Amino acid sequence: MRNIALKLMYNGAGYHGWQVQKNASSVCETLEKAIGKVCGGPVHLTGCGRTDAGVHAERYIANFRTESRIPIDRLPFAVNTHTPEDIAVLQAYEVPEGFNAIGSCVKKEYTYRIFNSRFKNPFYVNRAYFYPKRLDEALLDEAARQFEGTHDFRAVRNVGTETKSTVRTIHWCRVSRNGDLLELRVCANGFLYNMVRSITGTVLYAAEGKLRPEDIPAILERGDRTLAGPTVPPGGLYLTRLWYEDERLHG
Amino acid sequence: MRNIALKLMYNGAGYHGWQVQKNASSVCETLEKAIGKVCGGPVHLTGCGRTDAGVHAERYIANFRTESRIPIDRLPFAVNTHTPEDIAVLQAYEVPEGFNAIGSCVKKEYTYRIFNSRFKNPFYVNRAYFYPKRLDEALLDEAARQFEGTHDFRAVRNVGTETKSTVRTIHWCRVSRNGDLLELRVCANGFLYNMVRSITGTVLYAAEGKLRPEDIPAILERGDRTLAGPTVPPGGLYLTRLWYEDERLHG
Repeated sequence: MRNIALKLMYNGAGYHGWQVQKNASSVCETLEKAIGKVCGGPVHLTGCGRTDAGVHAERYIANFRTESRIPIDRLPFAVNTHTPEDIAVLQAYEVPEGFNAIGSCVKKEYTYRIFNSRFKNPFYVNRAYFYPKRLDEALLDEAARQFEGTHDFRAVRNVGTETKSTVRTIHWCRVSRNGDLLELRVCANGFLYNMVRSITGTVLYAAEGKLRPEDIPAILERGDRTLAGPTVPPGGLYLTRLWYEDERLHG
Repeated sequence: MRNIALKLMYNGAGYHGWQVQKNASSVCETLEKAIGKVCGGPVHLTGCGRTDAGVHAERYIANFRTESRIPIDRLPFAVNTHTPEDIAVLQAYEVPEGFNAIGSCVKKEYTYRIFNSRFKNPFYVNRAYFYPKRLDEALLDEAARQFEGTHDFRAVRNVGTETKSTVRTIHWCRVSRNGDLLELRVCANGFLYNMVRSITGTVLYAAEGKLRPEDIPAILERGDRTLAGPTVPPGGLYLTRLWYEDERLHG
């Protein structure tokens, strides 16, 4: 049985997330159907993480097992013929039997994009969070850095999925500006449900004077979700980088 | 009676064009409703041109008459409160009684964007035309230049709207590449129905070896639509620049 990893990209605006329980269109399901056509039978796809409805992936890794003999370099083109334009398979790799897109993932980076301009930009709809009041990126960055390190992050997650532990390690959490676009980049060994969107909401609270950057460690300490900022909308969120032991899957 | 011109921007993906006859959502209608709320009564909006379903505008001018006394600099913010995120009013101007967004327009530039990469990009859905085979921009540019000048353009229009004459002057028609993005920019004193999309289809025919750039003058001469290339999809088309005698409205 071959184990195949796919490097892909998707625009989440039209989907109810990577995976769904009920009858709604998901990226995973759409891809499984396309791969099934190419490989001549149903496949089960394991993704590197569950992105929410409306969340995007500039990079995503998923793996599946198949008996199909299709040459590995033919696979991306073949699958792309059967997927809609908002999902693209970029590359395919043969991976060892034990490889698992989520279990083998060492760390991930998400980026939250804020369009910070007086006027909305019609071309950022569902792609960045529109925030008309001028934001001070230095203050946002100071607030963001408070999340770095190993902490219990239950103050910035929403209840939804079960996890054994709510402790994670954030390798970096930084804010930078590129013209009217602000980016919060956060890299961690794992993420809790809605964690990046809650961190972003908390960082924006700091910009709005609703809390001070130096209040954040105590909010994490107390673990009280109501003290942190709101969960910002999904359209600004992108999975942007992934790290695996297998360096071919990086990037 | 005040005559007010609005400079605006819209993402056409969700609309049946600037203006529609039947019961479908149009940019014009959406804006008229929003302005009506702000100005306290129905308004009639005149646009600088009729963009088709799915076509975008990075720049667009429209005007309307009103008795409302709302300060001119308050108007963009007020109208934006009532429009969806895919339509943005950038600025408002008091214009002379005789001003008319279409009649007073001196020339316009449209840009057609082609995403020319081996793999589709999910973030260009409805925003650029995906063309996977590598295109030679020098050849495309050579073909595009054949359209420059004053000609009868009936070979590159679709039947749909009546016009007295099918003669127009194209000031420039050029192709350039920026990474994976090709842009065909065409500026003219006026455009026929589907003219830019037919020109782009014809230029792509040249890239595909289905005609030679030097065949284009004869195609225009003969005025036979069937000799020119196909009408490419609307999502790649943007109204990008406008010129008026009133320089405030330029850009």
